[in-house]
Amino acid sequence: MADTAAAQGPSARTAPPAGRDAPPALPDFTEESSAALVNASWAGTGDDRLREVLTSLVTHLHAFVRDTEPTHEEWEKALRFLTAVGQKCDDTRQEFILLSDVLGVSMLVDAINNRKPRGATDSTVLGPFHMVDSPPRPLGDEISLDHVGTPCVVAGTVRSLDGTPLPGALVDVWQANGDGFYDVQQPGVQPDLNLRGLFTTDAQGRYWFRSVVPRHYPVPQDGPVAELLRATGRHPYRPAHIHFIGGAAGHQPVTTHLFVEGSPYLDSDAVFGVKRELVTPVREVDDAERAAGFGVAAPFQLIEFDLVLAPEGASERSAADRG
Amino acid sequence: MADTAAAQGPSARTAPPAGRDAPPALPDFTEESSAALVNASWAGTGDDRLREVLTSLVTHLHAFVRDTEPTHEEWEKALRFLTAVGQKCDDTRQEFILLSDVLGVSMLVDAINNRKPRGATDSTVLGPFHMVDSPPRPLGDEISLDHVGTPCVVAGTVRSLDGTPLPGALVDVWQANGDGFYDVQQPGVQPDLNLRGLFTTDAQGRYWFRSVVPRHYPVPQDGPVAELLRATGRHPYRPAHIHFIGGAAGHQPVTTHLFVEGSPYLDSDAVFGVKRELVTPVREVDDAERAAGFGVAAPFQLIEFDLVLAPEGASERSAADRG
Repeated sequence: MADTAAAQGPSARTAPPAGRDAPPALPDFTEESSAALVNASWAGTGDDRLREVLTSLVTHLHAFVRDTEPTHEEWEKALRFLTAVGQKCDDTRQEFILLSDVLGVSMLVDAINNRKPRGATDSTVLGPFHMVDSPPRPLGDEISLDHVGTPCVVAGTVRSLDGTPLPGALVDVWQANGDGFYDVQQPGVQPDLNLRGLFTTDAQGRYWFRSVVPRHYPVPQDGPVAELLRATGRHPYRPAHIHFIGGAAGHQPVTTHLFVEGSPYLDSDAVFGVKRELVTPVREVDDAERAAGFGVAAPFQLIEFDLVLAPEGASERSAADRG
Repeated sequence: MADTAAAQGPSARTAPPAGRDAPPALPDFTEESSAALVNASWAGTGDDRLREVLTSLVTHLHAFVRDTEPTHEEWEKALRFLTAVGQKCDDTRQEFILLSDVLGVSMLVDAINNRKPRGATDSTVLGPFHMVDSPPRPLGDEISLDHVGTPCVVAGTVRSLDGTPLPGALVDVWQANGDGFYDVQQPGVQPDLNLRGLFTTDAQGRYWFRSVVPRHYPVPQDGPVAELLRATGRHPYRPAHIHFIGGAAGHQPVTTHLFVEGSPYLDSDAVFGVKRELVTPVREVDDAERAAGFGVAAPFQLIEFDLVLAPEGASERSAADRG
């Protein structure tokens, strides 16, 4: 058009375009233009962050569709799957979080939001079972109220990044029992607040409590996400772990797990939560004096797990420094 | 490690690695490795196509999360939105298809699955209202049973790509009335099968019927997708259109719309369905002979819309030739 107008001289260039040859400026939807065309529709979004996220979403979503070229039937099947995921959710079940978990996205969001200086304890996912407040307990208390599992002592020190012990730090723990169930999964079977405790470190930054060695367990097996795992030959298990949230004045809190060394599925956690440094051995200790200090008899099983917290404002690892 | 072993000589290189320095081969989940690590989990998928789609999904989904760096709260908000979309679905409402529509993905899937030779009528989305079979009707029949809207005649020819008229072709049409509602949206108000018809072209490949000019209408306004449109300042309207499915022996069928020229929202269809060549004028015709041929009085409103079908096996436009 531009070349034609130029050939006709200046007067033609200022004339309005001819009626039949110049349709109204309608969008021309093609495989190549689709994302740009949809993203133009966000121009009126008042919230800049929402516009940014939606623009990125459409760009990546259209790229996914172009890469995979789904048939109409495949796309309908995908939408039916997402519908089933939504419809499986209720007050106590969040199947979309589970989907995010098994696709590794929950861990990725966790990693992005927990860039810590090297040496600080790595974070991992919060998980769905921190739904009740842990009861404050004195150091050394027994948190296993049902005594299902191998008795053990869990002990460690909360330290700052430079090694300084942190007295008065809070250590919030919760875990499954030796059968692989949390209290909230077995109401009426397990006592309320079984295997939960909120401890405060002593003057040397130490914490310790008595518990049982947790067992590995599967993610929920009765929904569309479990069907996806079955269709892909993936097992549904999480390796045995104890949840921790550590916090201290002037420090960034950490939400993490202690993973039990030797548990099955450490190399294939269904939600990708394992990090090497979080894997911790259960050691048999045959030392009467230490046993007495923990209020148990020798020999006993001991898990030692320290938490290293980054000071508030400590610089994050850069992308180049991570990994 | 490799350098150290080399410095210790050949015997050390064949020795097993030391216990403390060689943790088990656990996945090391980082922002950079996350997609590769999750995609390794699909190795046991028996269905090659499922593995291919999931691998692409995880790659693009993790890239989206890395690009946007959502906070935990933002990610939870996104999952709550998807949950609400799933929970809005029931036997007569599919909110995930609507979400796919307003993100332009339904049109992209349609484009990918309908690459046609240049000159064939463009396809557009099927939409959710083709839920009942259109009743077979004789040529010239009136499909507006409630007479809500401006009367018009719709007429055209079904042709093959080389211009040959196609006798005995099927033309399936359905549309909203002059108030912008389909029969299935107003049970008890509109007669059953209002504004639906299945026609067969005559010996010259022609079809024609009497109807009303449809009105633009909004997508459903009571769900999370409508909330998204409001949050982004997008209107919910589709421009006025009549749905067509054209089919003939030896030819690829086409699912498309006739868009009414002059309708509001032609340049901003909420589902991105408009293509320029599908926009068709409503012309007033003051010709008593033509009017009599259609069984109406002059002057009358006429929409002329031809369908051009590609022969079966006609080569698709290549990516380079599209657009």
